[in-house]
Amino acid sequence: MIPADAKRKLTEIAGNAFLDRPEDMRLYEYDGGVDKALPEIVLFPETAAQIAAILRVALDHRIPLLGRGAGTGLSGGAIPCRGGIVVSFARMNRILEIDLDNERAVVEPGVVNLDLTLAVQGRKYFFAPDPSSQRACTIGGNVAENAGGPHTLAYGVTTNHVLGLEAVLPDGAIVHTGGMGQDHPGLDLTGLLTGSEGTMALITKVTVRLMRQPEAVKTILAIYDTVDDCANTVSEITARAITPAAVEMLDGVMLRMVEEATHAGYPMDAAAVLLIELEGLQEAVEEQVEQVRDACAACHAREFRIARHAQERELLWKGRKNAFGAIGRVSPFYYVQDGVVPRTQIAPTLRAIGGIGSRCGLTISNIFHAGDGNMHPIILFDARKPGDLKKAQRAGEDILDHCISVGGSITGEHGIGMEKVELMRHLYSEESLEMMRRLKSLFDPDGMLNPGKLLPTGKGCTEIRQLPLVNEKTML
Amino acid sequence: MIPADAKRKLTEIAGNAFLDRPEDMRLYEYDGGVDKALPEIVLFPETAAQIAAILRVALDHRIPLLGRGAGTGLSGGAIPCRGGIVVSFARMNRILEIDLDNERAVVEPGVVNLDLTLAVQGRKYFFAPDPSSQRACTIGGNVAENAGGPHTLAYGVTTNHVLGLEAVLPDGAIVHTGGMGQDHPGLDLTGLLTGSEGTMALITKVTVRLMRQPEAVKTILAIYDTVDDCANTVSEITARAITPAAVEMLDGVMLRMVEEATHAGYPMDAAAVLLIELEGLQEAVEEQVEQVRDACAACHAREFRIARHAQERELLWKGRKNAFGAIGRVSPFYYVQDGVVPRTQIAPTLRAIGGIGSRCGLTISNIFHAGDGNMHPIILFDARKPGDLKKAQRAGEDILDHCISVGGSITGEHGIGMEKVELMRHLYSEESLEMMRRLKSLFDPDGMLNPGKLLPTGKGCTEIRQLPLVNEKTML
Repeated sequence: MIPADAKRKLTEIAGNAFLDRPEDMRLYEYDGGVDKALPEIVLFPETAAQIAAILRVALDHRIPLLGRGAGTGLSGGAIPCRGGIVVSFARMNRILEIDLDNERAVVEPGVVNLDLTLAVQGRKYFFAPDPSSQRACTIGGNVAENAGGPHTLAYGVTTNHVLGLEAVLPDGAIVHTGGMGQDHPGLDLTGLLTGSEGTMALITKVTVRLMRQPEAVKTILAIYDTVDDCANTVSEITARAITPAAVEMLDGVMLRMVEEATHAGYPMDAAAVLLIELEGLQEAVEEQVEQVRDACAACHAREFRIARHAQERELLWKGRKNAFGAIGRVSPFYYVQDGVVPRTQIAPTLRAIGGIGSRCGLTISNIFHAGDGNMHPIILFDARKPGDLKKAQRAGEDILDHCISVGGSITGEHGIGMEKVELMRHLYSEESLEMMRRLKSLFDPDGMLNPGKLLPTGKGCTEIRQLPLVNEKTML
Repeated sequence: MIPADAKRKLTEIAGNAFLDRPEDMRLYEYDGGVDKALPEIVLFPETAAQIAAILRVALDHRIPLLGRGAGTGLSGGAIPCRGGIVVSFARMNRILEIDLDNERAVVEPGVVNLDLTLAVQGRKYFFAPDPSSQRACTIGGNVAENAGGPHTLAYGVTTNHVLGLEAVLPDGAIVHTGGMGQDHPGLDLTGLLTGSEGTMALITKVTVRLMRQPEAVKTILAIYDTVDDCANTVSEITARAITPAAVEMLDGVMLRMVEEATHAGYPMDAAAVLLIELEGLQEAVEEQVEQVRDACAACHAREFRIARHAQERELLWKGRKNAFGAIGRVSPFYYVQDGVVPRTQIAPTLRAIGGIGSRCGLTISNIFHAGDGNMHPIILFDARKPGDLKKAQRAGEDILDHCISVGGSITGEHGIGMEKVELMRHLYSEESLEMMRRLKSLFDPDGMLNPGKLLPTGKGCTEIRQLPLVNEKTML
């Protein structure tokens, strides 16, 4: 419980921009993942100075605190699992500076990802990180989770696009990291804070790279009669020294659900498809289309379709990006996983996922960023059937253990959050985890910032973890 | 002084692979920069376990210790300014694994940069970071200093090519960071250690990205009658959405020195030239050549030469990469600076450098990575003239202050080392420096690892800093 005098100070600092009624708190108890927990108060500051003052009050009274963007995360990063204060960045949503000569912008953390691209696209620039939730998610959230997206293959995850930060430490100190250039000397605080999931500081300003739009874009749908052939095409493309902007794979179960919902033109009878996007100079893209056609043919693609115009391209992407709504039509309960394997391990991993599904008697469908081996198995289950949820969670863990066993990782882009905090022990040695804990403590010695996330403590949030409910809101 | 019993333990751990005679120590008192200091002993371990044992002895006896690759650094990073132990990586020079399917390799830190490229070039791969010292410098040193090179423009500095590390902490603990994929969850220890200049851990294994060779390469020499026109071309190329593999600029003073030494075909009467390299698919490169030709013409280039074959290309690069030998023929004493400015600030910064040179009565010549605004002014002086060296150092500091004032930085790729440790205060606030110091202390609480480097303490190495002597060995 937040003491009354602390609450009075907090609401005063926030200029009375706050919510605390139980019915309002319900809107802040979830994100796009499966975990839930209620905050006691949500504050809407507008400046770093206000955030510093809020943090000092929180620290004085030992009240847990976390930042929240749009709440589209998939691993519970924005869930206040110990109650306390949520600092919403909804009112810190201004683009502060756009400097195209030096290809960068400075934004507040609450700026919606797509809004930055919309602000510069007239001048043929864009902001590269493109989570499927980009119409809603915020750049602050992208930085906290080090978010990826379909175009991560060519452009890398968020950390590759962050040049500098302004951040407030738990004791209220405001620090500036990095700068406006590509690289700065000294210890890389920018890289350390990016992906730290709000456990070390609250970010109040972000300097990002902007990129030039490519001259030409081609979107291809390659259709296969076997999953192996489809998966093998990914390495086959790489072997031709081509890095497409995106290589997305949908298996048969998934593409039938997607096609029924979106009528994007996906084949109903195929075993799997690849959605491949090539970008660059006109001539280069045309040459690459032919090389990708060869790679697909070498892997027995039964059809190779090139979108003829922007409308066809958008329709294909609509099918991909709205896949989760499509699943919701068929199975209201599902659990999305996020694991990574080396590209050469995609086909065996899909077979392993199939085996795990058979053993637990659940359908597992796959739609994922094949180009960088970032798997998103979707486990369909019925939460009303006793034991089904447990089976789904067990299947998810088995899949991640498989990813680790072949040299991969337990998350490609959704973060660790609450969901995977205990799984960190499967990926890192106790020495490495201890080093991370000591780093976290250096910034947040009292453990007030987003407790229970990212790093397993042995007394994490798991005991109060809630069961997943309907996941129709999940975005990928 | 290292106590006799500590010395006995150290030489035992190193299996008697050590040097300690005064005449041998002379070989380890310098790097490519201006600072000097003698170690007491140089050890040549072959395993991480030996290094862990050495670190434990050093810690027990409070003996300062640092790692050393090839000693080609330019900022004194490998200078034992407090004496003590140098750990040479000369015997840890094996390429442990090459995995082209997943485009990566695992190497020991003593592997020479170019040797990795030579090991994979037959299969059309390369290791991207290419300091001009790449025939001698080691990958461990590249990681410690987060080294760059002419091709940083297209490929980024070393940190963009490091996927994971094995490192030994000062207490002897061996930690593993990152992994084999592009991105790993948790706090980014790999990024934190990369560029930490050997102040936090000794790196014993590096997992790096390998890249595919481009299909086509074109090298262009653009010749100008004014420095401003030459400098302005850089932004003009960017405005056409082209990122060349390299854009190097040489001013008139420099190109006359280079031409006299190398006969590479550089014009003797020009004000400045750009050396531009374009890479990619054949068709794309050909189109880009035309766009770059337009950009150069828009900035009044008087000539635009394309190297006709590999031999001409190599000759142009030979001129660039051997520039320092060429300077040595004209002026045996010179001081190389390394500052960064936004691309749009190149022309004004060159004018500012000219002004600083005039004011202190010294010739300053420029040869640098223009594409990323990484300036390398070379200050010619005569160490035998009283006061000349001081003037040169003052000019260097004035240039860096100018770089900071226009939004740049005090090093692009040479690191902070001893040379710029006090200048860190010009770039960062005391809060940011204190945060870096606390991070460093977390890894190295007793301050045993490479003391006096990277972070200013107020009681740094400056008081024992030696004067630069002849710099003919300097590599860029």
